[in-house]
Amino acid sequence: MGRWEPNARERLVRAAVDLFSERGYDKTTVTEIAERAGLTKTTFFRHFPDKREVLFAGQDILSQLLADGIAAAPESATPLEAVAAGLDAATGIFTQAQREFGPRLRAVVAANSELRERAAAKRDGLASAMTEALRKRGVPDLASALAANLGALAFERGFERWTEPGSEQGFTDLAREALDELRAAAATLG
Amino acid sequence: MGRWEPNARERLVRAAVDLFSERGYDKTTVTEIAERAGLTKTTFFRHFPDKREVLFAGQDILSQLLADGIAAAPESATPLEAVAAGLDAATGIFTQAQREFGPRLRAVVAANSELRERAAAKRDGLASAMTEALRKRGVPDLASALAANLGALAFERGFERWTEPGSEQGFTDLAREALDELRAAAATLG
Repeated sequence: MGRWEPNARERLVRAAVDLFSERGYDKTTVTEIAERAGLTKTTFFRHFPDKREVLFAGQDILSQLLADGIAAAPESATPLEAVAAGLDAATGIFTQAQREFGPRLRAVVAANSELRERAAAKRDGLASAMTEALRKRGVPDLASALAANLGALAFERGFERWTEPGSEQGFTDLAREALDELRAAAATLG
Repeated sequence: MGRWEPNARERLVRAAVDLFSERGYDKTTVTEIAERAGLTKTTFFRHFPDKREVLFAGQDILSQLLADGIAAAPESATPLEAVAAGLDAATGIFTQAQREFGPRLRAVVAANSELRERAAAKRDGLASAMTEALRKRGVPDLASALAANLGALAFERGFERWTEPGSEQGFTDLAREALDELRAAAATLG
């Protein structure tokens, strides 16, 4: 109790992803996650409010990084250039462990409707943070919402590619690439 | 038991929206909803799987209507024209009661994180149905996802405007108007 546990957070995430993959999300308890990680339940709750949030932790920090990156973009930046600056700023948050967990984590989320809903809400939350940051730059409401939406799609696609086995490019490159593809696709919608 | 209850579904929705607005979503039970509607709990469960789905019923039908409308669009239609045809096809699902409930329903959803997550997932589900329908028309994956995303945003904005007190235009007009605005905004993103 109270003593410093090296890498507790990462150990808990690793244990949770392992157990969710092995037994399913519903059949895994917080006690089991803590045990597998060689930690106590108390330590678990110092890091996460509940079992579900092990999979979604960091959303607030991520929203803040995206918003800060958008705010710091040059005044002359277009809405999508500002979004790209937001994606650049978010890159520091990701760890090698997340890259490795990515595919299994996606499989766990895809298999559970509650987790899919939480994932959709997370994407919405990121888009809202970007919308607000764009509005503060004076971008009109609808253009802000739309650019933020493209940003959230690019973020998601970039993250997927970044976590694909064998992927070697950095997250920023992949997310910017996805944003460029989305911009090109937008021109074909008629 | 088993006898036909006139307008049971609408009475249940009305009772639920009233109770959620008065007491909050968490403090309302299925039994109370049924009582307020002058119906039994059994009747409730003939119409809805649980309390939450009173607010989200009809998603499957709506997805189907959007997809069918997209499929039936002329071969020459651009992706966004096909999406507009989907929005046209969805218009028949809405009732006058939904128009009236709209603002209170949005307030109930906004006040509860579980409901906000469900709403985000619903939007995702509608976008997925439209993405799939566009792909079947031969629209490339990314353009399909993007057009469907604009469609989901237009749907949401159209529905919001349609349910604003004093609004008199039809849903289709408002959703198409929102889609046009999104298309115009897309051209300003840089």
